[in-house]
Amino acid sequence: MTTLLGGIEAGGTKFVCAVGTGPDDIRAQVRIPTTTPEETIGQALAFFQAQMREQGPLAALGIASFGPVELHPESPMFGFITSTPKPGWRNSDVAGPFRRALKIPVGFDTDVNGAALGEHHWGAAQGLDTFIYMTIGTGIGGGGLLNGRLMHGLIHPEMGHIRLPRDPQKDPFPGGCPFHGDCFEGLASGPALEKRLGQRAESLPVDHPVWALEAHYIALALTSYICTLSPQRLILGGGVMAQQHLFPLVRAEVRNLLNGYIQSPAILEHIDTYIVPPGLKDRSGVLGSLALARASLASSSAP
Amino acid sequence: MTTLLGGIEAGGTKFVCAVGTGPDDIRAQVRIPTTTPEETIGQALAFFQAQMREQGPLAALGIASFGPVELHPESPMFGFITSTPKPGWRNSDVAGPFRRALKIPVGFDTDVNGAALGEHHWGAAQGLDTFIYMTIGTGIGGGGLLNGRLMHGLIHPEMGHIRLPRDPQKDPFPGGCPFHGDCFEGLASGPALEKRLGQRAESLPVDHPVWALEAHYIALALTSYICTLSPQRLILGGGVMAQQHLFPLVRAEVRNLLNGYIQSPAILEHIDTYIVPPGLKDRSGVLGSLALARASLASSSAP
Ligand SMILES: Nc1ncnc2c1ncn2[C@@H]1O[C@H](COP(=O)(O)OP(=O)(O)O)[C@@H](O)[C@H]1O
Ligand SMILES: Nc1ncnc2c1ncn2[C@@H]1O[C@H](COP(=O)(O)OP(=O)(O)O)[C@@H](O)[C@H]1O
Ligand SMILES: [Zn+2]
Ligand SMILES: [Zn+2]
Repeated sequence: MTTLLGGIEAGGTKFVCAVGTGPDDIRAQVRIPTTTPEETIGQALAFFQAQMREQGPLAALGIASFGPVELHPESPMFGFITSTPKPGWRNSDVAGPFRRALKIPVGFDTDVNGAALGEHHWGAAQGLDTFIYMTIGTGIGGGGLLNGRLMHGLIHPEMGHIRLPRDPQKDPFPGGCPFHGDCFEGLASGPALEKRLGQRAESLPVDHPVWALEAHYIALALTSYICTLSPQRLILGGGVMAQQHLFPLVRAEVRNLLNGYIQSPAILEHIDTYIVPPGLKDRSGVLGSLALARASLASSSAP
Repeated sequence: MTTLLGGIEAGGTKFVCAVGTGPDDIRAQVRIPTTTPEETIGQALAFFQAQMREQGPLAALGIASFGPVELHPESPMFGFITSTPKPGWRNSDVAGPFRRALKIPVGFDTDVNGAALGEHHWGAAQGLDTFIYMTIGTGIGGGGLLNGRLMHGLIHPEMGHIRLPRDPQKDPFPGGCPFHGDCFEGLASGPALEKRLGQRAESLPVDHPVWALEAHYIALALTSYICTLSPQRLILGGGVMAQQHLFPLVRAEVRNLLNGYIQSPAILEHIDTYIVPPGLKDRSGVLGSLALARASLASSSAP
């Protein structure tokens, strides 16, 4: 028996909505531009209601959202996007309208935790209980599982904002993060690459020297995550990581920076399967939202 | 009914062994210098055997050990100290001799995870499910709970070895870590302070300018941990943190570095209860080993 699920990859530029049961069975999918909450959520709702008429009931909906978001179920703001600078979306209820209109369990988490759960169900993190999924794109963010459960804690991680060493002789660019200047996101996101060089990252040739610098910053951040939470694997997605040649550079630099300190065969001998692209390619996000739907079903049927 | 437990805080200079039920009921305690594994473990074993004759049976033993250690129960090296530079202790079985001789469940984890569990049971982390316990002493290390369970992952965290930005104009000291030079431990451990200034940290006056630098490095590391795993609290112990005046400096600098990015009242309004000394003072380690004993009992009696 297959359980039909709905999912929304709720991003700052578009909401991708899907109905299906998993990677090999997506029955319908639609992209809705992110305008106002009323309009965008209204269109998404209309899509799911039409799907339910056509395909039958959905067992649950999952929403993997841009943030910051409120993830504490006991908070009155649970399911809201909170302090975003995006006009109109500050303190907006995202999960509530779906829960009230569709009357089904609604799973809600960060976009990166959603993608991480998708990778855990169907992709590169199957069978692991502690791993990280990062996106390196317009922003840099990370999520994952810790001891078998999604990363939450006080709020949720903001892994893109760790501070990294920067040598101003080698890289005079002061970083583009409005909060921190040269944090990881400020130095290594797509827009940071563009600001540093005056051209879009996708237009830079593979042999441009900035890729070695980019790999260095990514590796510095990964070594920090490795030392801090000892993940069993690191999955790197997002637009910038479409530059596949970054992977060998990042792996070599992580080994170089750790300098033999972490005595694990995963790092010393098998780093090619330790730092990897998403198993679901660019579908981690939308499939992750289906995984969040499935997880909400499991927890709402728990005793 | 009280369950009598044994615990060992197994450090590189001494093993502290205790028998009791919790903070208010330590029946016996002994310090054994860390010499060879045979001698040290032999003396510890003799202590527990004598105690069992005097006080009656122990329900379980907990060992909170210096490392690196092997924590995977399925590994043949489970309960061993592995790649330590300490003469004689490389690849030595620590938990095994106790398990075989005492025939009781033996809980085994890192020293910092032990201390974290002690703080969770009886100290500053009661009721939390995701927090960090750090020691800043001869080395710098961290442990804690993630989603309600001790931090393990691939091996175990090595939080002291994250890279931090260092401004060579303000701090020309290149760091003392043999692996990484100016990682956190290389810059901010007790021996790093001593190497930088040529005198022991405990002899420096409270108004020495190095304390502002020390607080800056500690705060940089804490912001990295905060962004990476969103802990509900950070507990700072170890010899260097005996300098209580560091706490307000660290708290102010963490706020300064995060610059309003993490919109949590815990950080924005209540940072005095967010970054704290151990609730168990300098007893987190030994009481933590009793907490590990208690936890091993819970898991060995699980269905
Ligand atoms: N093939 C590519 N190579 C390098 N950079 C890219 C590539 N594709 C997209 N980017 C950069 O990644 C960013 C967009 O990231 P992406 O993950 O696609 O979207 P978002 O993060 O907004 O969800 C932009 O800054 C863009 O310049
Ligand atoms: N009161 C103090 N003030 C500053 N530094 C101290 C103080 N006490 C100990 N230290 C430093 O802390 C280190 C010892 O750390 P400690 O936590 O006591 O032991 P260990 O880490 O070996 O278990 C030494 O480098 C010492 O100089
Ligand atoms: Zn930032
Ligand atoms: Zn180091």
